[in-house]
Amino acid sequence: MSWLEDLKWDKNGLIPAIAQDEKTGKILMFAWMNKESLQQTQLTGKAVYWSRSRQKIWAKGEESGHSQTVKSIRTDCDKDVILLGIEQIGGIACHTGRESCFYNQLENEQWQTTEPVIKDPNLIYKKT
Amino acid sequence: MSWLEDLKWDKNGLIPAIAQDEKTGKILMFAWMNKESLQQTQLTGKAVYWSRSRQKIWAKGEESGHSQTVKSIRTDCDKDVILLGIEQIGGIACHTGRESCFYNQLENEQWQTTEPVIKDPNLIYKKT
Repeated sequence: MSWLEDLKWDKNGLIPAIAQDEKTGKILMFAWMNKESLQQTQLTGKAVYWSRSRQKIWAKGEESGHSQTVKSIRTDCDKDVILLGIEQIGGIACHTGRESCFYNQLENEQWQTTEPVIKDPNLIYKKT
Repeated sequence: MSWLEDLKWDKNGLIPAIAQDEKTGKILMFAWMNKESLQQTQLTGKAVYWSRSRQKIWAKGEESGHSQTVKSIRTDCDKDVILLGIEQIGGIACHTGRESCFYNQLENEQWQTTEPVIKDPNLIYKKT
């Protein structure tokens, strides 16, 4: 796939990926992809990432059901960042139960929480 | 500055930073910051990054005049990514003379250019 080869992968074979709500423009998440996960994203139309902590492919929503339908795939001038335009299924992208992961805003030199929890994470992630 | 210490810096002392137009929601740029550049960003209200290629602090717009006025500073649930809400002076964030760096869109397994050059880069960056 030459479009995959056109991208600049870092020394770990990864590229940063931003997930943006295609309709509202809100930034929902930031994660990493390896070549396989980006290829799966393109083939399936659902966002697939690489989990650096678990060192494995991670289909977004596989546990939570909060998958991301991919509307567009963009890259930047250096071809070393991916920007996904997505529809967030369930309206919750963050594992804390919030719409967006970017809920901490700097105010008076302190991080303040600016977004409500929409759903209790204990109800999202079933204990096994 | 405890808010700086709250963040997770990678092994190179860096954190990824996304610059988003505060009004339109458009993502304009992706770059990296070290602690000093983020502190300068907060103190001056203008975006300051770390150039990995040049290994130096880089005040956005220092050559082009296309600086970024910072309206908000956010971080995510893991506190390992920065999201800046900015006003892009001159309406051009990309060194190619485009509004946004994310002008390559995947269509039919090829990267297609989707944004026009607003100003010739040769006119933006004066040869010395």
